[in-house]
Amino acid sequence: MRIGLDAMGGDQGPAETVAGAVAACRDFGLAVTLFGDQAVIERELARGPDGGQDIQIVHAAEAVSADEAPVQALRKKRESSIVAGLYALKAGEVDAFVSAGNTGVLVSGSLLVVGMMPGLRRPGLVALLPTLKRQPLVLVDAGASVDPKPGQLAEYAVVGSIYAEEILKRPNPTVALINIGAEAGKGNELSRQAHQLLLGAPVNFVGNIEAREMLDGEVDVVVTDGFVGNVMLKLAEGLGMGLFSLMSREVRKTWSGRIGGLMLRPHLVELRSMMDYSQYGGAPLFGPRQPVIKCHGASGRDAFKNGVRLGAEFVRLDVVGRVESRLTEVAR
Amino acid sequence: MRIGLDAMGGDQGPAETVAGAVAACRDFGLAVTLFGDQAVIERELARGPDGGQDIQIVHAAEAVSADEAPVQALRKKRESSIVAGLYALKAGEVDAFVSAGNTGVLVSGSLLVVGMMPGLRRPGLVALLPTLKRQPLVLVDAGASVDPKPGQLAEYAVVGSIYAEEILKRPNPTVALINIGAEAGKGNELSRQAHQLLLGAPVNFVGNIEAREMLDGEVDVVVTDGFVGNVMLKLAEGLGMGLFSLMSREVRKTWSGRIGGLMLRPHLVELRSMMDYSQYGGAPLFGPRQPVIKCHGASGRDAFKNGVRLGAEFVRLDVVGRVESRLTEVAR
Repeated sequence: MRIGLDAMGGDQGPAETVAGAVAACRDFGLAVTLFGDQAVIERELARGPDGGQDIQIVHAAEAVSADEAPVQALRKKRESSIVAGLYALKAGEVDAFVSAGNTGVLVSGSLLVVGMMPGLRRPGLVALLPTLKRQPLVLVDAGASVDPKPGQLAEYAVVGSIYAEEILKRPNPTVALINIGAEAGKGNELSRQAHQLLLGAPVNFVGNIEAREMLDGEVDVVVTDGFVGNVMLKLAEGLGMGLFSLMSREVRKTWSGRIGGLMLRPHLVELRSMMDYSQYGGAPLFGPRQPVIKCHGASGRDAFKNGVRLGAEFVRLDVVGRVESRLTEVAR
Repeated sequence: MRIGLDAMGGDQGPAETVAGAVAACRDFGLAVTLFGDQAVIERELARGPDGGQDIQIVHAAEAVSADEAPVQALRKKRESSIVAGLYALKAGEVDAFVSAGNTGVLVSGSLLVVGMMPGLRRPGLVALLPTLKRQPLVLVDAGASVDPKPGQLAEYAVVGSIYAEEILKRPNPTVALINIGAEAGKGNELSRQAHQLLLGAPVNFVGNIEAREMLDGEVDVVVTDGFVGNVMLKLAEGLGMGLFSLMSREVRKTWSGRIGGLMLRPHLVELRSMMDYSQYGGAPLFGPRQPVIKCHGASGRDAFKNGVRLGAEFVRLDVVGRVESRLTEVAR
């Protein structure tokens, strides 16, 4: 098994991706192919310990910027790290592809380069959100499809259910639609229509849920469009981290606060790690017939290490194949 | 000055609304008219202390349920507390109207009963969100218009700016568009079009902002559609409160945690109050030519008391008149 990693993706560049790849090789015994500027990657590799890691490099020096039109990039930037990685995935040269690059290019590349599994119109990003119950909930779509048709939300409900059942081992997972009220008639046009379609979908649909209740962890899967899902994910991240910095500012103000803070530290560290996206390593993109993992743009080496691990788990458990066969079953 | 309060609105019913009205009279010397079932209101009033409060009752016994179609309710339920209150506002029998009832009915009632100010197509809810900088930021629309046209977001930008400038005393307030990426081309159809219109709007538009950065408090006003705004508001509320309950659970696990928690308590209480929506009393609905305040459905007596106070402040400062004249200026 060999995991491909986009060495040029992410806000922090190759220093973090390469270090993440080295750590994944060392800690999990994985083989990694890095896609990107060979000279830059080799320089970064030279900085780290040479532990005889099985790391290959595929030189791909073109850059895809954050504001580049995805279809354009796919057509013209075959020598970019992200597009080269997707073609290598398609060709079977790597078994999973991990990238913190342009989401639009990853999504379009899944459609156009890798190919979609039957039963899904467009890819959906699956993210895990921490809840008060300690077990994360599954959010689909976390940002792949920003103007979906109502029927896509029903498809995402199926994907989320399969993920919760097969990977998180939740029997008969409950699915709710993110909405701004509990009643079926609430919400915008999209959510009103999606609600009706979800009633007929082959999932355990329990109705609308408001974002406030979601965190109680009473449902296993929530579906929403990629715009709302992405906003929610980023707000949760910002708020979680923001509250911790506010708290540490408060705590440092007085001596009693400092002492209390020190005594609480181990507890807060645990709490903080629950809010930390890097532990999940990334969000799998469902739809492509081979595993594609989207890492957070702000990912550091730990997140990339875990992203590579998540890609390997997807290969090992044949998650994509299982979702595809369940989708086919559902569609029959 | 006389503030109208919908005694039947809110999840907790007249016990909380009536207690909130009594407290507002007592603490702020305000006169309140309660709209709702007279017998029920009188029973609740009898429970409280008789401090010679200036409270009137307008009997309105019909109920508007949460799933009732707004226009239907406005036409057929003239004797409901929310519709009766809006008519009393229109007639000048009260100077502001405060309700935790059905948002859709409040919004449609503002259009159809109270009348809209020129320059706004549909009402927008203005909510304040706590930030890391301690000064709240202005969020429009927090849930009044769930399928807006792109141009409405530009109108909301004007409303939010005026609110930030006139009420929060922020000179030349910055306005950002909630989006899932910094670049102009990012986001769904609505946000891409709104971005273009905002570039030409008479506000200090600084571009897109991701929900994560919003909490830093670097911008004064954020605009988004009412669906996304409402989801964000509820997620922030749920996360804020959820983190505190997680924290207290962690803290109670060990003796060192308990002691640390006790020492930190005063700091955490302050932090918690920053996250507490009830301090703001409610979200003003902009658009109607007279002040309408939407209280949170889960409001308790404190939130209603502060909602009545907010209504009175709106009257005292002539916020609606100032926004209307600024909108006219902007439109000339």
